[in-house]
Amino acid sequence: MVNLLQNDERLDHLLAENLRIIQSPSVFSFSLDAVLLAYFTSIPARKGSIVDLCSGNGIIPLLISKHTEVPIIGVEIQPRLADMAKRSINYNQLESKIQIIEHDLRTVVPLLGKEKHTIVTCNPPYFHSLDRSLKNQNEHYAIARHEIMCTLEDTIKTASELLKQGGKASFVHRPDRLLDIISLMQRYRLEPKRIQFVHPLANRDANMVLIEGIKDGKRGIKYLAPIIVHDDQGEYTEIVREILYGEVQ
Amino acid sequence: MVNLLQNDERLDHLLAENLRIIQSPSVFSFSLDAVLLAYFTSIPARKGSIVDLCSGNGIIPLLISKHTEVPIIGVEIQPRLADMAKRSINYNQLESKIQIIEHDLRTVVPLLGKEKHTIVTCNPPYFHSLDRSLKNQNEHYAIARHEIMCTLEDTIKTASELLKQGGKASFVHRPDRLLDIISLMQRYRLEPKRIQFVHPLANRDANMVLIEGIKDGKRGIKYLAPIIVHDDQGEYTEIVREILYGEVQ
Repeated sequence: MVNLLQNDERLDHLLAENLRIIQSPSVFSFSLDAVLLAYFTSIPARKGSIVDLCSGNGIIPLLISKHTEVPIIGVEIQPRLADMAKRSINYNQLESKIQIIEHDLRTVVPLLGKEKHTIVTCNPPYFHSLDRSLKNQNEHYAIARHEIMCTLEDTIKTASELLKQGGKASFVHRPDRLLDIISLMQRYRLEPKRIQFVHPLANRDANMVLIEGIKDGKRGIKYLAPIIVHDDQGEYTEIVREILYGEVQ
Repeated sequence: MVNLLQNDERLDHLLAENLRIIQSPSVFSFSLDAVLLAYFTSIPARKGSIVDLCSGNGIIPLLISKHTEVPIIGVEIQPRLADMAKRSINYNQLESKIQIIEHDLRTVVPLLGKEKHTIVTCNPPYFHSLDRSLKNQNEHYAIARHEIMCTLEDTIKTASELLKQGGKASFVHRPDRLLDIISLMQRYRLEPKRIQFVHPLANRDANMVLIEGIKDGKRGIKYLAPIIVHDDQGEYTEIVREILYGEVQ
């Protein structure tokens, strides 16, 4: 275990998938957003390949690896996070299935192949790089949260270039960016097909949105049943417990 | 009562508001869509004026009349429906509050005044005029359901022209037209501010969407807690019972 964890890192459980993941409070920890994106994304069982952009500590590749036999590539620009992701993958003995590439997504297409992939997922930075809150954050958090190393347009353009015709791209973001996401997706030939809002409570406005588009797909969006995160008692709802812990009632 | 009801008309209850409304199965009956739009719309208590476009048998003016002191004008192009609306208003003794104008909404702005009104509501025809299902319907239904006498763009353009700066327009429609509605609203200076999806069951895709925009408003949309219509037993949910019948638990 001496080489597995560094500094303030810890080995957290991903209960639903019976996996472990290395996290560190001083770098970045995965959030419910990534877990819900992994749940929302259409995953092919056997054919194709999956690319996860803005992969962070590898949470999305780890979560979806249990549901597919196809190779998964995670792209992460921050060396520290890419290294944590690699060590988690080794720990879970998933090296044959998941590959982490430490690379800038804006120049990753020639490396991974243009129009070669079936699925692209991305939990991108949510905030504009000029937001005031930026200056109080450490660099790791700032890059993960703000559009410093890539903009929303970069992620959508890259996703489209990686995908074959008929391939699917899925994103999670704040609802206030939804119209931007839709218009960028349409500009880059990713026709939005499925949208699912996430509400913190049954009677609250959405604070997250999941969206999936198909490359060169036909126009027409379905708005799925919403995900409600907490019940009136502040406990996770049944669906969220199932997604997080694998509990089925 | 001899003059109140004609042919196959009946006098239905609007329980939540303690009102009656004349309906006829051979013409058009109001649906949950209109009731939810009346519930969703921001209604001023005392100041301004409200215009309801595509008013049909006057369901929306009747429902909102109980919650405001401001004058309400319903615009309906079909003589038979406009006449039913007028008789319902008389029956409920709401002539001083609600006026029904039998007129084409495409030319109604000079009559009602440009940029004079506070709120515009509209439950427009949902279907394109060329849809195949059209030929099997009677004319009253066809006009109410299909974009024969007015298009979605006509309703949005008219709503915008009627509204003062800061005035609000609200619409109900099928979710598959939401992107069209948003882009038309933005084109006609109605910035979308609140969106609420309606799902027939908690685990089903949305089959209706409510949207409100503010004339010359600032960009930024809230996605409200969804309305779920039926519970697992097929009964109306508490919120829908409250809206329809005024039941509060």
